[in-house]
Amino acid sequence: MEFYLWKQDATGARLGEIRTAHGVVPTPAFMPVGTQGTVKGLTPEDLRSVGAQIVLANTYHLWLRPGADLIRGFGGLHRFMHWYGPLLTDSGGYQVFSLAPTREIGEEGVTFQSHLDGSRHFLTPEGAVQIQEALGADILMCLDECTPYPVDQEYLRKSTQRTLRWAKRCQEELASRDKAKALFAIVQGGMSTELRRYCIDGLVEMDFPGYALGGLSVGEPKELMLEVTAACLPQLPVDKPRYVMGIGTPEDLVDLVGLGADMFDCVLPTRNARNGMLFTSRGRIIIKNSQHRDEDMPIDDLCTCYTCRHYSRAYLRHLYMAKEILAYRLNTIHNLWYFLELMRQMRRAIAAGRFAKFRAHFYQLRQVHDGN
Amino acid sequence: MEFYLWKQDATGARLGEIRTAHGVVPTPAFMPVGTQGTVKGLTPEDLRSVGAQIVLANTYHLWLRPGADLIRGFGGLHRFMHWYGPLLTDSGGYQVFSLAPTREIGEEGVTFQSHLDGSRHFLTPEGAVQIQEALGADILMCLDECTPYPVDQEYLRKSTQRTLRWAKRCQEELASRDKAKALFAIVQGGMSTELRRYCIDGLVEMDFPGYALGGLSVGEPKELMLEVTAACLPQLPVDKPRYVMGIGTPEDLVDLVGLGADMFDCVLPTRNARNGMLFTSRGRIIIKNSQHRDEDMPIDDLCTCYTCRHYSRAYLRHLYMAKEILAYRLNTIHNLWYFLELMRQMRRAIAAGRFAKFRAHFYQLRQVHDGN
Repeated sequence: MEFYLWKQDATGARLGEIRTAHGVVPTPAFMPVGTQGTVKGLTPEDLRSVGAQIVLANTYHLWLRPGADLIRGFGGLHRFMHWYGPLLTDSGGYQVFSLAPTREIGEEGVTFQSHLDGSRHFLTPEGAVQIQEALGADILMCLDECTPYPVDQEYLRKSTQRTLRWAKRCQEELASRDKAKALFAIVQGGMSTELRRYCIDGLVEMDFPGYALGGLSVGEPKELMLEVTAACLPQLPVDKPRYVMGIGTPEDLVDLVGLGADMFDCVLPTRNARNGMLFTSRGRIIIKNSQHRDEDMPIDDLCTCYTCRHYSRAYLRHLYMAKEILAYRLNTIHNLWYFLELMRQMRRAIAAGRFAKFRAHFYQLRQVHDGN
Repeated sequence: MEFYLWKQDATGARLGEIRTAHGVVPTPAFMPVGTQGTVKGLTPEDLRSVGAQIVLANTYHLWLRPGADLIRGFGGLHRFMHWYGPLLTDSGGYQVFSLAPTREIGEEGVTFQSHLDGSRHFLTPEGAVQIQEALGADILMCLDECTPYPVDQEYLRKSTQRTLRWAKRCQEELASRDKAKALFAIVQGGMSTELRRYCIDGLVEMDFPGYALGGLSVGEPKELMLEVTAACLPQLPVDKPRYVMGIGTPEDLVDLVGLGADMFDCVLPTRNARNGMLFTSRGRIIIKNSQHRDEDMPIDDLCTCYTCRHYSRAYLRHLYMAKEILAYRLNTIHNLWYFLELMRQMRRAIAAGRFAKFRAHFYQLRQVHDGN
């Protein structure tokens, strides 16, 4: 993996490019989430057509079902799921802490129960790397502990130190086996800028090809998330991609790009699509609302996605009310297009040195139309 | 609507073409079922890509939700659902008799409760035509009573006579308003070849542009269905399309084409796809079976559909077990392709005057491989 930083806007927004064996990812980039080896409802061709250039898959889910060895037997997740573009896998840590019904964390690793069948599993830093290698992603993530908010400060300190030790073990595990793959480190430290700095110093010392901010959007106020991100991003190496994990809303993406973030992932566009919440350039709409019953207009008349080109709000509402599978797919196409088009627009604005203007216009459109 | 009969094979199989304002339908034709204004999980582009040339939509469902007037306001179902090819709507009669929790039939029409909310509705022959006109299909169906099996013979006689009177009323209703649309009559009469002949005589007297056999596949043995169809088809006018409603399996389609049928519809390929039952040239497979867990081969190695070109049985099983929406779509694409490719092969065989050979080969493949 190689990272090229083409340009930095006066605001701090960065324009770059990640090159992997499976293709190029222009940054800032948003990664659709393909939890179980599929972005729900879409084919890889659909993903390409909405502008996805990299997909995130969840190690935890794929490890438990259908199993990492099975996928390795198919030559890896790319071939198994028929997505031949860049792939990033998370470490499984976040899901162990958010999905598993019980877990017990120790120095060696974390023991947890599967949310599928209650069976017990043991995940170590080395194991997380081995599973991700079996999946064959282009970018792997270190196993970390995602601390909750609020959290006991003494626990946070110990956890952050362990996350550092685990990062080292992940790095050593990969180094011993596969030097072609890129392993990103994850900065933890809760909302403590001091612990975050401590964690960054330790990780940068180890020299990773990319750095992520984890443990954000875990219940803290949005201002605090932005504050922590603003404090952390400038401390990361300029020449490495910066990935803010699990965030966020369109507004978050615009704010964080302005702070110099390069990569994002979030289930928001896809999950909300399935719940009938659709993003537009003028704010959000809830498709099941009766006002859309006979609206002969697209979700967003400024949008040129497949859904907006061919279907009315009335038809989409009908599909949603009738619980038709096609509703999930058409809504997902629109929401992902909205997010990925937003990223394209931001990249264009940074390239032209007018990101601040873009950001002002983005917020203005929202205020004028619905105060969102 | 125009019908051209190009060729009749020595077996009785017919090669033809239906021309509508929205395009041409080569016959014998299989119509995928788009109950609620969508063939579950597929876009119209998907439908084209699997080879669909006409789609059936259900009047009963669309009348109750989102409503015929709403769809009329969008210029009809073609534009509402973004399918610009030929469309056929049924009369709603079959669903009233199979889905409505209560119903009461009289000379004037049928009163029934909606399966959605229990609300009461009254459907008359005139109303069925008006609703179908609002939907704007290319081919409309007369309101009939679909009699059960077995049935009291005296009731069957009276019902068949009423179906004849209703057909006349449907015809008069359409004549008074819209002469461009084609209204097909439905032959009823249960398993009585005498009543069927009586019904055919009455309908042919009225001169419809097409004739359907209804009331089949309602629980009778398959041999009886074939017997009744074999008795009825030759009595229908040679120069009009012959539509056998609600049937059937691949074997049924091959048998009925051999008896001279031109059109079919059935939920079998789409519904079974969603239940994980997939059709192959060598018989059926159940994708959730554990034998498919790590099978690195397509559903059918003789198939060239999108699903078979890109996905393994193992991946499809994984999606199915994980209840991923994409499972329904990929399975539906395959099953519909299988049915529509079967129709194409039959048309090619009839054109070449070798339908008997095709049929023998079709059954031979099944016997050799799994006795299905």
